[in-house]
Amino acid sequence: MMILYWHPASPYVRKIRIAVQLLGLAGRFEMRDADVNDPGDPLRQQNPLSKVPTLVRENGSALYDSPVILEYLDHLAGGGCIIPREPEARFAALRLQALCDGALDANYLLMCEDWYRTPEQRVARWVDKQAGKIERALDTLEAAPPDLSGMPNVGQIALACLLGYRDFRFDGTWRETHPRLHAWYDAFAAAVPAFAATIPSSG
Amino acid sequence: MMILYWHPASPYVRKIRIAVQLLGLAGRFEMRDADVNDPGDPLRQQNPLSKVPTLVRENGSALYDSPVILEYLDHLAGGGCIIPREPEARFAALRLQALCDGALDANYLLMCEDWYRTPEQRVARWVDKQAGKIERALDTLEAAPPDLSGMPNVGQIALACLLGYRDFRFDGTWRETHPRLHAWYDAFAAAVPAFAATIPSSG
Repeated sequence: MMILYWHPASPYVRKIRIAVQLLGLAGRFEMRDADVNDPGDPLRQQNPLSKVPTLVRENGSALYDSPVILEYLDHLAGGGCIIPREPEARFAALRLQALCDGALDANYLLMCEDWYRTPEQRVARWVDKQAGKIERALDTLEAAPPDLSGMPNVGQIALACLLGYRDFRFDGTWRETHPRLHAWYDAFAAAVPAFAATIPSSG
Repeated sequence: MMILYWHPASPYVRKIRIAVQLLGLAGRFEMRDADVNDPGDPLRQQNPLSKVPTLVRENGSALYDSPVILEYLDHLAGGGCIIPREPEARFAALRLQALCDGALDANYLLMCEDWYRTPEQRVARWVDKQAGKIERALDTLEAAPPDLSGMPNVGQIALACLLGYRDFRFDGTWRETHPRLHAWYDAFAAAVPAFAATIPSSG
């Protein structure tokens, strides 16, 4: 069995869980709770960055971060499933993934501003910088939502997890201002049962 | 001509510049200075995250982040050059890249603590969290430096840029405490002329 270090709040873990279901690989994984802030957590022996998701393969070697794990899952499933082989489609999917992961990174930094700092220690210029990345990413995606047909690719999976994270941590305020993304999100949720099965929680 | 939005201080840009030289693609790029904090910079039209490196292809479509651009460069060069095709070697290289990029991300957040905050606004628990990622990454790499023979892969390129960034921003203090990495770094620099040609500066 492979081991997936996870946390129920992580949108990056959610990407992996969705891919595992889409690719029919669920039986090959054991989920292991990880506390990224606990120096004694065995996660740290597997990933010096102490991040989830981290995947430990059957041969004992670890893989991270989430794009690398997703490529490995795609490889296990035969390749070309959630990462297209054809170059134009492949790079479009990888770029969309990078855009959504980058927006998720900015979301995480916004949360850390609350988690790690007193109100006096928060800095508007930093908050605005991160919020601007998210706003521009969502507006760009609203202008041209990605296609959604057949097997979702890593970019589409990342977008669904980004929007789900906005729901989870930021009260879904993106919905009113981004109606086309809202429709896209509903269509993704209807097409991918694993999405509803992985709604984030604080754990 | 493709356009590469860049900044001379960015270690992520440095990865791209090294790969461009290694792959013999230098003649196909025009470098364009970018100010990631300037709302009027054309970079923002190409990448909503306003990050460098961002590559604009000849057909006008943009690619990011650095791992995606590196895969595209590898593709342009025929494939299998800086990202091995054989699965075990490929995932080892991608994991090493993720580890070094993750340590670079932590380095960047440490710098931002200085750039964006007064001393009173800095938080030791946050600084320690980022510093711990870097320390554990370097110690893990010191225990088993990667192989270095033939064409460098994306993981090795990322490691060299991580160590170079420690020199640039943190005064090279890693050298004394990580002698095997120091030797690895010197061997990389000797083997890859593009490394010395891309020493970071504040611009």
